[in-house]
Amino acid sequence: MREFLLRASKAFTKSFKLNDLPGAGRIDLVCRCITQAIWLSGNLRRNVVFRSVFEGPDKPPKLITVEASKLRGMSPDERNVASHLRMAIEKGYWLDYGEEIEVWHGIKVAKKSFEEFLRERSEEGVEIVYLHKRGKDVREVEFSKQVCFVLGDHKGLPKAAERFLKKIGAKRVSLGNKEYLASQCIAIINYELDRRNVD
Amino acid sequence: MREFLLRASKAFTKSFKLNDLPGAGRIDLVCRCITQAIWLSGNLRRNVVFRSVFEGPDKPPKLITVEASKLRGMSPDERNVASHLRMAIEKGYWLDYGEEIEVWHGIKVAKKSFEEFLRERSEEGVEIVYLHKRGKDVREVEFSKQVCFVLGDHKGLPKAAERFLKKIGAKRVSLGNKEYLASQCIAIINYELDRRNVD
Repeated sequence: MREFLLRASKAFTKSFKLNDLPGAGRIDLVCRCITQAIWLSGNLRRNVVFRSVFEGPDKPPKLITVEASKLRGMSPDERNVASHLRMAIEKGYWLDYGEEIEVWHGIKVAKKSFEEFLRERSEEGVEIVYLHKRGKDVREVEFSKQVCFVLGDHKGLPKAAERFLKKIGAKRVSLGNKEYLASQCIAIINYELDRRNVD
Repeated sequence: MREFLLRASKAFTKSFKLNDLPGAGRIDLVCRCITQAIWLSGNLRRNVVFRSVFEGPDKPPKLITVEASKLRGMSPDERNVASHLRMAIEKGYWLDYGEEIEVWHGIKVAKKSFEEFLRERSEEGVEIVYLHKRGKDVREVEFSKQVCFVLGDHKGLPKAAERFLKKIGAKRVSLGNKEYLASQCIAIINYELDRRNVD
């Protein structure tokens, strides 16, 4: 199983307008990541779970989970993906810490922080991989079967988050000497794993 | 220089609504391809030219060109990219065969067909590469400095177009055994060329 976690440091945790996704704390970026993560041509990738922690106003943090294998009726365009995210944000507005609800087939929202989620995953034995220009070349890295790839948004990850990742033993992996968009990183990681016939 | 050509078999050549890009002949798909082709994190790729032939109603074919090195004021979200495409389609509506106009910094529109454009490129000595599951593995292929990657949309390329590509000597290149979205193919090709330090 492949898991992606995007830290969306500005993404609104209140309702937003579908006509202005960049103005909602760059929710457009989150949508592009979802599309690149879960789709193939004419098919969903049943082996992918995409997650994003929204840290913008008013009620952060919110962890949104998209399980491709359970998803129904979502299209790959930004506006349609965003409408699903908005549903999650609206229905999860008043959640308390630790609570999680399913808002649509394959879409859940929880009140949970980036650090809390990753600490849990790490304790469950999932390999945490942080994509960073100064990491080990992806083509030289072996990944375990349960792996979670961590990405920053347009702001990158703050230093404190990088220290936290180091503390929990996250592996730093590089895609080369270019700095890619988060959505491009996801497409590339999926491709690199596909080439190895890794599920 | 890297060039991408997307055949958008249904994309409208008349004005369309920004709130329904899928309904405009899958212009959402074209927008995602543009974003994946021309952006890096915080930067435009100065070495990329993206083109798409729109073949939907009312006035096909229209060839739209986006030159990243000349582009100004475009954001990577689908709605913003689409607003630039719409400008090109509206301003180019009445163009005659062979005519081309610049509608914005780095954005041009011409009345030209997929075949006509590729025949010209091929005669100019540009290497034409067609991405196809049953091609030679991309990692075993050397590309020339002037290369144009040809992609189909959600419908794929029709048989006649495949025959045409064969006739002009296009190389068939494969990204592996998965069928990717056109936008994913573009991200992967850019990545493969980046890894070789090819411009």
